[in-house]
Amino acid sequence: MTILKALFKEVSFSTSKRLDLVDITELVSSFVTECNVESGICLVNSPHSTTAIIVNEHESGLKEDILRKIREEFPRGAGWHHDWVDDNADAHLASIFLGHSETFPIRKGRLERGTWQNIFFLELDGPRTRRLLFEVMGI
Amino acid sequence: MTILKALFKEVSFSTSKRLDLVDITELVSSFVTECNVESGICLVNSPHSTTAIIVNEHESGLKEDILRKIREEFPRGAGWHHDWVDDNADAHLASIFLGHSETFPIRKGRLERGTWQNIFFLELDGPRTRRLLFEVMGI
Amino acid sequence: MTILKALFKEVSFSTSKRLDLVDITELVSSFVTECNVESGICLVNSPHSTTAIIVNEHESGLKEDILRKIREEFPRGAGWHHDWVDDNADAHLASIFLGHSETFPIRKGRLERGTWQNIFFLELDGPRTRRLLFEVMGI
Repeated sequence: MTILKALFKEVSFSTSKRLDLVDITELVSSFVTECNVESGICLVNSPHSTTAIIVNEHESGLKEDILRKIREEFPRGAGWHHDWVDDNADAHLASIFLGHSETFPIRKGRLERGTWQNIFFLELDGPRTRRLLFEVMGI
Repeated sequence: MTILKALFKEVSFSTSKRLDLVDITELVSSFVTECNVESGICLVNSPHSTTAIIVNEHESGLKEDILRKIREEFPRGAGWHHDWVDDNADAHLASIFLGHSETFPIRKGRLERGTWQNIFFLELDGPRTRRLLFEVMGI
Repeated sequence: MTILKALFKEVSFSTSKRLDLVDITELVSSFVTECNVESGICLVNSPHSTTAIIVNEHESGLKEDILRKIREEFPRGAGWHHDWVDDNADAHLASIFLGHSETFPIRKGRLERGTWQNIFFLELDGPRTRRLLFEVMGI
């Protein structure tokens, strides 16, 4: 008889800059291994509106390129209405375009990801204490 | 014995403007509660090619900023080929960049979302009648 | 008794240009039908950092518009740091903004998608041999 597992995990951590890329690959990967799920999915979710989850290569030059692109694409203080309420409209907009979650397959008990696919928590309005949620489902 | 639930729901509604942000948080949240799933995921999916699902704060100034950013980023009638077929290439392009679905964790029977995370159906080529799909899976 | 299924599939194929839109709708749709899952989800995942999965209408003019928008939005050789390591920073950035996976509902044994929703594998740094992963879960 096949038994479904549905396992939730929450972690919290601090970011150190306004824009900050935190590599969470090992965190996700080790949680998946602990879950002992042979085949299924892993949802990585940030419950914030000024952060994002992105997936790409961990190379120092590329990390600078990502932050440059975000600064150029979502300029701070560009006459946004939300800046009158809270001075971070640029962070909200970047979060919307980049997305707050990613889903991965699990195969043979391991997180399935490509050689050049690291998982990053992207802080867009730090430094702050942030939460990160995982849900693993499978058999 | 753990029993898996996999529940599907479809709703339809009308949008009122060409660009329109419809807050669907309560719709998603109440469906999840009805499903009586303790731990799992909820997929929110728009089956259209000129709409998007986005997640962020429900603040009136920010809503205007989001629509301004979309208009600037995907200008209407900018010589797009698709405009010869159907005058809405800008809406298709925005849909591709913003994405047509979002997935959330379910914990203790409730939709898990952050304090400033509302869920929006983004109309990009309205007004129209639109469909919205939900799939809840879990135990 | 309801039995959960969690089925994984991997395919590989070749792309033919640097920027290339490969329609994978039939591939996804036929895998879902084979799985014989009544209600559930299908995850479509690319394990690469210079590709994306997008969902939209298959119309030749729109396909050109998508590639034009990507070229304009992520210009090649725009002084990116990563270009000193590997001359493809533009492809990495486009992949991050467009996303490497999509999730769909399954209803009555079939992939649930809109009339104008085709699924595309987007090559951003080809031609190359690429892998594509599917995970179907449900009952």
